[in-house]
Amino acid sequence: MKKVGYLGPSGSYSHLVAKHLDHKTELIGLASFYEIFEALETEKIDIGVLPIENSTEGAVTPVMDALINMKDCKIISEMTISIKHTLLSTAENIKNIKYVLSHPQALEQCREFLKTKVPYAKLIPCESTSKACLLAKENGADYSAIANQFAGEIYQLNQIQINLQDNALNQTRFIVLGKEEKLPTGQDKTSIIFSLYDDRPGGLFEILKLFADKNINLTRIESRPAKMEIGKYLFYIDLLGHASETEIASIFNSIQDKTKTFKILGSYPIGPNL
Amino acid sequence: MKKVGYLGPSGSYSHLVAKHLDHKTELIGLASFYEIFEALETEKIDIGVLPIENSTEGAVTPVMDALINMKDCKIISEMTISIKHTLLSTAENIKNIKYVLSHPQALEQCREFLKTKVPYAKLIPCESTSKACLLAKENGADYSAIANQFAGEIYQLNQIQINLQDNALNQTRFIVLGKEEKLPTGQDKTSIIFSLYDDRPGGLFEILKLFADKNINLTRIESRPAKMEIGKYLFYIDLLGHASETEIASIFNSIQDKTKTFKILGSYPIGPNL
Repeated sequence: MKKVGYLGPSGSYSHLVAKHLDHKTELIGLASFYEIFEALETEKIDIGVLPIENSTEGAVTPVMDALINMKDCKIISEMTISIKHTLLSTAENIKNIKYVLSHPQALEQCREFLKTKVPYAKLIPCESTSKACLLAKENGADYSAIANQFAGEIYQLNQIQINLQDNALNQTRFIVLGKEEKLPTGQDKTSIIFSLYDDRPGGLFEILKLFADKNINLTRIESRPAKMEIGKYLFYIDLLGHASETEIASIFNSIQDKTKTFKILGSYPIGPNL
Repeated sequence: MKKVGYLGPSGSYSHLVAKHLDHKTELIGLASFYEIFEALETEKIDIGVLPIENSTEGAVTPVMDALINMKDCKIISEMTISIKHTLLSTAENIKNIKYVLSHPQALEQCREFLKTKVPYAKLIPCESTSKACLLAKENGADYSAIANQFAGEIYQLNQIQINLQDNALNQTRFIVLGKEEKLPTGQDKTSIIFSLYDDRPGGLFEILKLFADKNINLTRIESRPAKMEIGKYLFYIDLLGHASETEIASIFNSIQDKTKTFKILGSYPIGPNL
């Protein structure tokens, strides 16, 4: 049975995604992004589920940065889920609430709600939305957590208010990491990272031209600092197609020649939206 | 006398930058990014100093996102400073430290130091590095803050260890916002934001081509979510040159035709590195 690591404790959005994976699996909640990458490297888990971008907050940067150092694993699938935040508490009335606990991104995503409905409440950042539920359960009726309804069920908390998020279209895209080789399905995506030579200012344009000339669709371009001085970046690109297709393989050969570092993170089927 | 708002309280990196501005100014510490943008809109301050990117952590996303909605202000200058984190406390010995307080980005930038030198310490995220100093001062010798040496002087804390940052080349670039029109100096930068039409997948390539064809150097390309579903982005570009130069003005006209939204954030002299 495959072991799947997700960002725990139980009831997190990562847990929701892990439950949807098409495997007979044992699900294991881990405490941080770093632990998931470490557990993959040391083969304590076979598969890891990680958020990579949110439609309001943008890139999940610690995950993006860890991908460049990932050794034997690849991205083997993706899944996008709609984030629906709920206010959960052992209390039954919003008027009782003195503290709101959640992951900093979730607090940020509910900023308008928090400002208008519980302006007096103290906001307490936690490692995860489900950790927030655990603490809200333990600390009693002054406390509340922002998390998904699934977490509310697990921790037996009341739903005080649903759909707290400022933006109705709040989605998070998750990637699934593993060692399995994914063969082309005809509906694939490939993720790559590269960095440019310092003396090539038009470098990014040259790379994009390779794709544009062959009408290959890019679904995401993201830059991250190269962890050196200001002005040095790594570029992440998601494109439609599989690395084994002749045209894409030939573009990757050209990219290799034009870039300082180049890494294929994986080719995988275009994922569902839940 | 011009009023300059920085992310306070006193002793923050923003305060350091504000002190270096070439104006006779009154410096005002504000509590959040949002308050700085609001104070600019309501003319409570004339100038605002905000971090925009860090060489380790990347874009300061709340600032990036607020720029798209900024009304009458422009970017009028920039400054890059080297971030040198120091462990500060009323204690004199690292062995006393049970709590480390700082801004989450500063804690993240010192992750190796924290893991190896004070693995037992509880990390407490604060709104700013200087707020962390204030709390460390108030709470006594079990507490410490990660901030710059200038903050240590202001809050009269001991320097327990200097240069905590994992990456020796840790820099933050700040932008300065105001209403002043900056004339070309011959050594200028211009910042723009745009979003593409949904049915134009090769759109970013077409925009970059306009610059590449005229050999205009781009110093930064960043994508941010358009706050809709996954897959819709805004692009931020910094380029070398001034918006009033004929060649650049003509490119901006073409960009206007090819994009859904397009905004010039400002043209300003290339800033110093401190």
